[in-house]
Amino acid sequence: MSIVVVGSMAFDTVETPYGKVEDALGGAATYFSMAASYFCSVKVVAVVGDDFGDEHIELLERHGVETSGIERAVGKSFRWGGEYSWNLNERTTTFTHLNVFETFDPKMPQSFRRVPFVFLANIDPELQMSVLEQVEDPELVACDTMNFWIEGKPDRLQELLREVDVLVINDDEARELAGKYNLVEAAAEIRDMGPSALVIKRGEHGVLAFFGDEMFSAPGFPLEKVADPTGAGDTFAGGFFGYLAQRGEHGAPALRRAVIAGSVMASFCVEEFSLGGLIDLDEERIAHRYRAFQLLTDFGDL
Amino acid sequence: MSIVVVGSMAFDTVETPYGKVEDALGGAATYFSMAASYFCSVKVVAVVGDDFGDEHIELLERHGVETSGIERAVGKSFRWGGEYSWNLNERTTTFTHLNVFETFDPKMPQSFRRVPFVFLANIDPELQMSVLEQVEDPELVACDTMNFWIEGKPDRLQELLREVDVLVINDDEARELAGKYNLVEAAAEIRDMGPSALVIKRGEHGVLAFFGDEMFSAPGFPLEKVADPTGAGDTFAGGFFGYLAQRGEHGAPALRRAVIAGSVMASFCVEEFSLGGLIDLDEERIAHRYRAFQLLTDFGDL
Repeated sequence: MSIVVVGSMAFDTVETPYGKVEDALGGAATYFSMAASYFCSVKVVAVVGDDFGDEHIELLERHGVETSGIERAVGKSFRWGGEYSWNLNERTTTFTHLNVFETFDPKMPQSFRRVPFVFLANIDPELQMSVLEQVEDPELVACDTMNFWIEGKPDRLQELLREVDVLVINDDEARELAGKYNLVEAAAEIRDMGPSALVIKRGEHGVLAFFGDEMFSAPGFPLEKVADPTGAGDTFAGGFFGYLAQRGEHGAPALRRAVIAGSVMASFCVEEFSLGGLIDLDEERIAHRYRAFQLLTDFGDL
Repeated sequence: MSIVVVGSMAFDTVETPYGKVEDALGGAATYFSMAASYFCSVKVVAVVGDDFGDEHIELLERHGVETSGIERAVGKSFRWGGEYSWNLNERTTTFTHLNVFETFDPKMPQSFRRVPFVFLANIDPELQMSVLEQVEDPELVACDTMNFWIEGKPDRLQELLREVDVLVINDDEARELAGKYNLVEAAAEIRDMGPSALVIKRGEHGVLAFFGDEMFSAPGFPLEKVADPTGAGDTFAGGFFGYLAQRGEHGAPALRRAVIAGSVMASFCVEEFSLGGLIDLDEERIAHRYRAFQLLTDFGDL
């Protein structure tokens, strides 16, 4: 099955202890699409400026991503800058220039409207809702959000959450959204808002997911080299949702494997700057890292 | 098989957002022994003052712990005070009174000297070495340590590590000992110092272990109620080492299961103050929580 994703496409200027990139390809929809493209076909809805080179569109198309939903507007593409602390655990945003994203009004091409798996990456919940209203009878709807919207548009976010099956957010966001520090308590609170499944991203500490009456915990993969954490969360979401779309199922066993598939993709993402860790993957490398997650977590009966 | 453990027995005054206890039974050897007692027979080497009531000795004996190695000295028992932050993630030591522990010179009863599994809890590495020299040909030696000794007695600690099979420390200690932030790099560095296995405790984020050419990751159990994290690391060590002694093996598969057994015991520990979470356990509750760890982490092939 295929996915439609709406979100940002951007140029990132990122500095970490391991190097620096300027105006490198980034954005939530970009990372998501690249990761999901290894599992299923992906259609992107986004806006870019007239500075967005064809080579970036071609990169996505080479990975089978359908790009006809990327609007080209007059002006500059969204730009973001960030710096990471020496241990990569803290990030400072150095600038955010929304540029063409400021007036983004996502329009779904007709051929996108009957896609069964819909992912609403982190943008204004009003835009997320507008996209959702353009989709006919989706099978599974997932979304991400962030503190900015949790604080700035709580009512619109609540409206959206009532329509969402799977919420994928990070731990601090989950705590803020629920008003509870303890993640087990926060999860119960958030699932009462609408999403039947909640996937909490914990950075290097992995993922904690809640669905049905089950909890599932996946570690972050212990890597010797982490070059740049940018995009890891969106890449996780792409692998996670891409796996579900590939299998065309979303029961508990599939959700567990999907969390690992997402974690596999995120582990490749952080090994290089920008999309460098995602562009040259193949089924074999993905299966090998998935097997490494099994070896990392397997244990027998007591 | 049985274990001999040397370490502190103490009275703790602890305040968390969920309550406060004064002069409650604590100490690394106490938590370790109680946890290990559910798996194998345990002999303790420690010192207490004349304020240490018989009821505490009897509590240990009721759990099958051999207490003839607990020296009663004139003076007060070791006392420690700590306060936890609102989210339990930060701890401030309010006081440390070594008291009788200051002049502790551990003497092993004759019947303790041929015990095959030896655990050296966090005390002065000179004392740890002195205990180790009193043991005849142990099968497996594990130890814990802390920043105070890593900084204060680095040479003595290095001497000790050359004689140790399994080092059980927390993540900050591993980073400081290795002088490397990345835990994969730190682990390689530390294992070059002597221990063939390294078990890194990461608090609520669980455990990352290294042995042979394998890595093993265990989550912290997501609990709705955490009353008091005091003693969780020592309790983990007790469950971990107790499981290995019970099985009389320490190959990779046993080490993996032992890490989970330790995590199970730690998850019970933090649910109550002092030893409250450990005194009334039984095989069935332990097996049930172990199974909950399996459900928490199981996933199928890609």
